[in-house]
Formats: sequence, structure tokens, C-alpha cells
Amino acid sequence: MTAPRPVDLALRARWILPMEPGCVLDDHALVVDEGRIVDLLPAADLSARFAPREHATFARHVLMPGLVNAHTHAAMTLLRGIADDVPLDAWLRDHIWPRESAFVTPEFVHDGATLAAVEMLRGGITCCSDMYFYPDAAAQAFDAAGLRAVIGLPVLDFPTPYASDADDYLRVGLAARDALKHLPRLTWMLAPHAPYTVGDAAFARIVTYARQLDLPIQTHLQETRAELDEALARTGETELARLDRLGATGPNFVAIHAVHLGAGDRERLATQRCSVVHCPASNMKLASGIAPVAGLVAQGIDVALGTDGAASNNRLDLFAEMRLAALLAKVATGDAAALPAAAVLHMATLGGARVLSLEASIGSLVPGKQADVVAVDLGEIDDAPVYDPISHLVHVASRERVSDVWVAGERVVRDRVPVRVDVPALAARTRLWQQKLR
Amino acid sequence: MTAPRPVDLALRARWILPMEPGCVLDDHALVVDEGRIVDLLPAADLSARFAPREHATFARHVLMPGLVNAHTHAAMTLLRGIADDVPLDAWLRDHIWPRESAFVTPEFVHDGATLAAVEMLRGGITCCSDMYFYPDAAAQAFDAAGLRAVIGLPVLDFPTPYASDADDYLRVGLAARDALKHLPRLTWMLAPHAPYTVGDAAFARIVTYARQLDLPIQTHLQETRAELDEALARTGETELARLDRLGATGPNFVAIHAVHLGAGDRERLATQRCSVVHCPASNMKLASGIAPVAGLVAQGIDVALGTDGAASNNRLDLFAEMRLAALLAKVATGDAAALPAAAVLHMATLGGARVLSLEASIGSLVPGKQADVVAVDLGEIDDAPVYDPISHLVHVASRERVSDVWVAGERVVRDRVPVRVDVPALAARTRLWQQKLR
Repeated sequence: MTAPRPVDLALRARWILPMEPGCVLDDHALVVDEGRIVDLLPAADLSARFAPREHATFARHVLMPGLVNAHTHAAMTLLRGIADDVPLDAWLRDHIWPRESAFVTPEFVHDGATLAAVEMLRGGITCCSDMYFYPDAAAQAFDAAGLRAVIGLPVLDFPTPYASDADDYLRVGLAARDALKHLPRLTWMLAPHAPYTVGDAAFARIVTYARQLDLPIQTHLQETRAELDEALARTGETELARLDRLGATGPNFVAIHAVHLGAGDRERLATQRCSVVHCPASNMKLASGIAPVAGLVAQGIDVALGTDGAASNNRLDLFAEMRLAALLAKVATGDAAALPAAAVLHMATLGGARVLSLEASIGSLVPGKQADVVAVDLGEIDDAPVYDPISHLVHVASRERVSDVWVAGERVVRDRVPVRVDVPALAARTRLWQQKLR
Repeated sequence: MTAPRPVDLALRARWILPMEPGCVLDDHALVVDEGRIVDLLPAADLSARFAPREHATFARHVLMPGLVNAHTHAAMTLLRGIADDVPLDAWLRDHIWPRESAFVTPEFVHDGATLAAVEMLRGGITCCSDMYFYPDAAAQAFDAAGLRAVIGLPVLDFPTPYASDADDYLRVGLAARDALKHLPRLTWMLAPHAPYTVGDAAFARIVTYARQLDLPIQTHLQETRAELDEALARTGETELARLDRLGATGPNFVAIHAVHLGAGDRERLATQRCSVVHCPASNMKLASGIAPVAGLVAQGIDVALGTDGAASNNRLDLFAEMRLAALLAKVATGDAAALPAAAVLHMATLGGARVLSLEASIGSLVPGKQADVVAVDLGEIDDAPVYDPISHLVHVASRERVSDVWVAGERVVRDRVPVRVDVPALAARTRLWQQKLR
């Protein structure tokens, strides 16, 4: 008999939900070493096999993979709730864009992204995909807070204080990537804002860069009915058809929103093996529409969940998005069996990892993957009785039930307190921004 | 100058939202004596005018009226999440009704209603309207927990262990009311289950009792498309038209759900001054449909919010219902301005009180009304920045932000802990029920 293997960490819990397989394991332990998952085994077998240097027991909790927020504009937390109950056009034109052009600087992005990182980590999100100006400032904020992130390098055809034209956006974005490539929790995507703000010439260059650098492409796509109708009226084809023609679609193409799909678009997404990010709260709040998510999933299209920015949500809360996705799919299809809780949890974890090209390293609690783990307390009296922890994670638990969070085996939230960020200092900086932005 | 008036309690808060008026007051104090609100005034003026025996300050909180859950089946908390992702018919026939007929006793109702009362109070709900078997058991559970409640006396045409026919339901229900009439936090309604389970003869008697005893009537109405279609096919009229013909409609008539309204039904609700209870989570989860709430409100119909039972929700959480109501109205109408946050808060407080015929005593923080008050913490880092507390109460706050709750001036939740209920004992009883029901 061999001696127990020394490892960094063992986490024992009432339930563990590894996602691969999708079942719930009772009283198991997750073993972590050097940031990666080493084993998942019955708690009774732990001490014979492993000698963990740190050991924690979560008697009322589910341990599960960290949630993946596949679309956000993190820095917009500073604009949380600044303009509700306004249609999308007026919301952008009268409230968001004027403040962005006046105030968005690297400091704004850094502070807003730090605020977002703290909110996301406390809510069990261990990886986000971001799209905003000054992505280098956001990248550094995420890395400092301990959050894993996919950094979208934004591209627009029109000038902003951040860059002057599509070539300039690409130039400064790729320079940011070169400068920060060494940070292990970050990966990178090209992020043309939307087909209606980026022309054919720029998309052609983006496609070339994507192939040469093996970078995925993410873009807002057909978020509103008006957007789809205008594209059809102007060009005779849907935006997706146009991007397909330009060579942008494929397994590395992520369509954000995809609320309004024209004739052939669903087949196009499926045959090109594109992914979709579903943002139910934002689509509802801005009255954009209901994405046909149950149908997309049935067609085998990978669907992830996203919060969008806090200005249109107003929180970065994947528990809320999970529940909304489940409820919305049921009422939209008229089928109470649509998008069961397990399917929604998949979208929020392994599905999200796949959409972000991170499936090999995160999204499930499988030996060899990064130890991105969340402990969710289901032992409050409001949870009782718990017949099915998967149902409770989607329909009963709020993000406040997340007690502890690990990224790459490092505990970044301990009993609801972010470990790496000075929260009172962050709150003070946020109050200064609020005074300016109001 | 007179000496300050001795009073029981003063609550000072960062913000107070009295609902009448609908604005947010900065740094005010609420003064309570003998269970009722005495004054609402700038905090700076408090000490000159009042000498409170107890004084509490909530520097990061909104104080607001307790939330009103205008429709639930409280005891069904014991069936929380026992069967998800199942269409309404099969859900009732295969999962709920068999368990109800096997297990529902006064003890089941008492324990389930106690569990519900604790969950609701901790989530800021100070008044619920309940409809279930053995209403006397629920009434005693609510009263013991300190929750205000409207007790629906259920009526069905078919026998259950609780009663044998419509006359028997009415007899035992009214006897329960007679026995418990002295409890000041309780009021009473007649609660025929639904038009399709209660025939004309029984409805005629219910209308007579309602008039003689001055009791409102609440009933499930046109929850599903199939229900409306069957009524039209069978009788040539909608259920609402039939109830109108039978004399049941009027200012004391509460239509629960009202998802599918036929020709003339909206006008019928408006001209008869009926009320509606909107249950967005339940209607979405069971794929029943989307009630035309923004339209009903625009017609001047009083609309309240309800959670429905925990078996179809799966939580009794009015913060969740507020957000769902706002988001759903926007996406259903295609109008981002539909049902603004203030309108939703009204539905959850003063609107709910009006629907339950309790407007004279609860629903707003106005001198003379009962001191049913909730403190909601908006000072967490996830809330920052707070531009508009009303927006945050609907779109950002989870029920976990409720710290303290008063009913009739009595603090029934103190720093998230229910004061009157032995929570460990309740948890143990819930585990016993879970073992039986599984």
C-alpha cells in the first residue's frame, strides 16, 4: 500500500456537481494540486489516497464548476441603473453614449472592471468574456482580482477617444494582447462591435487576423427586430448571411444575442458550428425580444449565458440569468419541459466554456482541468426541502448563497469576502465616479 | 415648546420610500407607536418632537412598506422543486395531486405554512394571501410566526379529505373563520378554486355568503389557453363572463393569474372594478403564458403580485416576482418603457394592499397605518453605485438584502433571523416531511 499523495487542497461537500457526468454526487471530495483538479472521489476514500495541505468541508453546500459569464461590458457597472425604462435607441443615444464619450478612460475601465470582477466573483462567476474600450485596463483589473477572463479586442469603424478607425482599433487591441499575453488567466478574442458598426473591409481584415492568430471572433448579432429589418432592407441579406459571405462564421464565431434570426440563419449557425450567447435579462429589459434558445439547443448549437453590461441588466448575476433563461424558454415555447434545469446549468458552465474556446481547461470538475470551483450553500431554511440540488441551483438559489470561490485552485472569495481586492477603497472610488457621472 | 412625545420606536434610514408619495426621502425617520405609524419626518427633527423608547439606525438601507404576496399556497413549500420541467396537466395529475391526497393533513399545512411564513418574512413579505386546504392550520401558523395574512377559505365541488362538497367546504371554512376571527393580523376571503372546479350552484351560494358576510372572493381565472378554450367550447362564454353573469364580479372580486383574457374580458374586469393578481414566475415555469399586465394597469385595473405556491415557482420571493414582472412586461409589449420600476414596486406594496382590501391599514408608510416595514440593505459592493434606490429594489436587490422586518410595529425578523419561530426545529420537521413525500 502506497503512502497518501501530498496535494495542495481537498474540498469535501454535501453534494458535488461535476457537470461531467451531469449527476449529483453525495458526500464526495474534490482534490486539487498546483491549481488543477487531481481527483474527485467519495469522501470516505480521501484520507487513504491523499494528504491535503489544506482541507475544507462544506456540509450544506453544492460544489460546482465556476460559472461562465460569456458576455459582458464589465466597466459599465459604473453606469448601473443610471437609465432604466428607456427604449434601446434612446437609451444608447441620450444616456449611455454621451457619458461614455465624456468619461470613458483607462481609469474608468479599470475601476469599473474591478467593481465588476468583485461582483462576479462573489456571485460565483469565475470566468467572463468582456467587450469594451481599453481592454488592457480591464484585463489588468480582472487579473488583479483573480478572475479568469476572455478579453474582447473591440473594433468599430468610427472614432472614439480609444481609437480612430478599424485599423487603429486592431492595432491598439493587438498591442494590448502582446503586452499582457503572459498573464495565464487571460485569453483573447477579436470583438467587432456589430455588423452595423463594422463594414466589409474591416470584417475582412478581422477574418484575416483571426485566422493568422487563431483568435475567435465575437460580435453582437441581430439583437433587435429593427436591426434585422434594416439589414434586410439595405443589403437584401441578414447580418449573419453577410458575415458568412465574408468568411467570419465558423466554430470560432460567437454570435451575441441572436434574438432575431432570419430565414436560413438557424441552419447557418448550425452548419457553420457557430456559438450563441443568450442574454435574457438584457434582451427583456431593453425589450429586444426572446432568442429562440430551446430551438438552437435542439439543433445542437452551443449556447452560453451572458449578463451583458450592468447598465442594461442591472446586475452581473448568472444565477439570475439561469433562472430567466429557464423560465423564458418555457413560456416562449409554451412547453413547461423546455430547457430543464440541467440544460441551463450546462449553458452556465461547460457550455459557456465551450463557447469561449476554453472547454479543455474549465467548465467541469474533471481531473486535469483548472480548479475553478464554487461552493453554494443550500442549507438555509428558505431552501428546505431540497429534493433536487440541480433544481435549487436554477430556481431557488440567489447568488448570495455563494460562499467561497476558487480560480485555478486559489481561494479568491472566502465566506463572501473577496480576497484580493480592497473593497472599501473600491467603494470609495466608485462613489467618486458616481458624482461625476450623475 | 412642548416636551418630546414618548413613542415606542423610531427607525432612521439612509432612504425611506413611503409609497405615498412615491418619492424617495433622504435621511428621514419613521416613528411608530402602539403598532401604528405616527410620523415620517427628517431625521434631524426627530429628537425635538419624539422620545422613542427604542431607536434603530439603518445607514445603508431603504425602509419601505412590507411586501404583499397576493397569492400563494403556503403549505406547498413542502413540495418545493419536487417536480420541475413538467407541463401543468401532468404536473398536477402525476406529481402534486397524488401527494396531496396522501399526505395533506392539518399538520402538513401547519408545518408547510410555518416554513412559508419564515421564508416570506425573511424576504420582506409582511402579508400574504393564502389559498389551501385546512386554512385554520395555516392561519394559526401565520399568526404564530407574526405574518399578516388573508386566509382564503377554499371551495371545490369534489370531495377531498378536508371536505366533501361545496356546502361542506363553506361550512368548515366559515367555522374556521368564526374560531379565529379574534386574531388581529388575519382577514378572510372566500376562495373558490377555479371556475372549472366549482359549478354554478356553488358559485351562487358563494356570492350570497360574500355579500352577507362582506367577504371578498378570490379565484384562479383563465390561467392557461386550454382552460379558456374549453370554457368557450363548453359554454360559449369565458369563465369571467360566466362569473359576471352569476354576480361574482365586482370590486371585491380578485382574479388570480388572468393570463388568457377573451373578447370583452378586459373591459369586464375594468368596468366591474375587479382586481388581478399577476404571478409571473409560476406562469412562466408552467408555460401558462404571459398576462397582459401593462395593458391592465393602463386600463386602471388594480394589479398585485403573487408567488403562487413553492411547488410551481420554486420560491416565495417577491423581489424575484418584481423583477420578472418588469422584465416580462417589457419584452411582451416590445416597449422598454413598459411597467417602470416604480409601477412594479406599487404592485408589490400599495397595489397589493388594495387588491386584498387592506389599503386602509397597510401598503404605505402613512401615519395611522399599521407599521409593516422592511429594511433593505443597498450598501453592499454589488449594489454600487446607487443612482436610484427604486431601480435597485426592482433590478439589483435580492431578497437576501432584507435585514429587518416589522409587522404591526413588532420586529419579527432581526438581522435576517426570524424572531418568533424555532428555525432548527422547523428544519427538522421539514426533513421528516421530505422523507415521507419523496
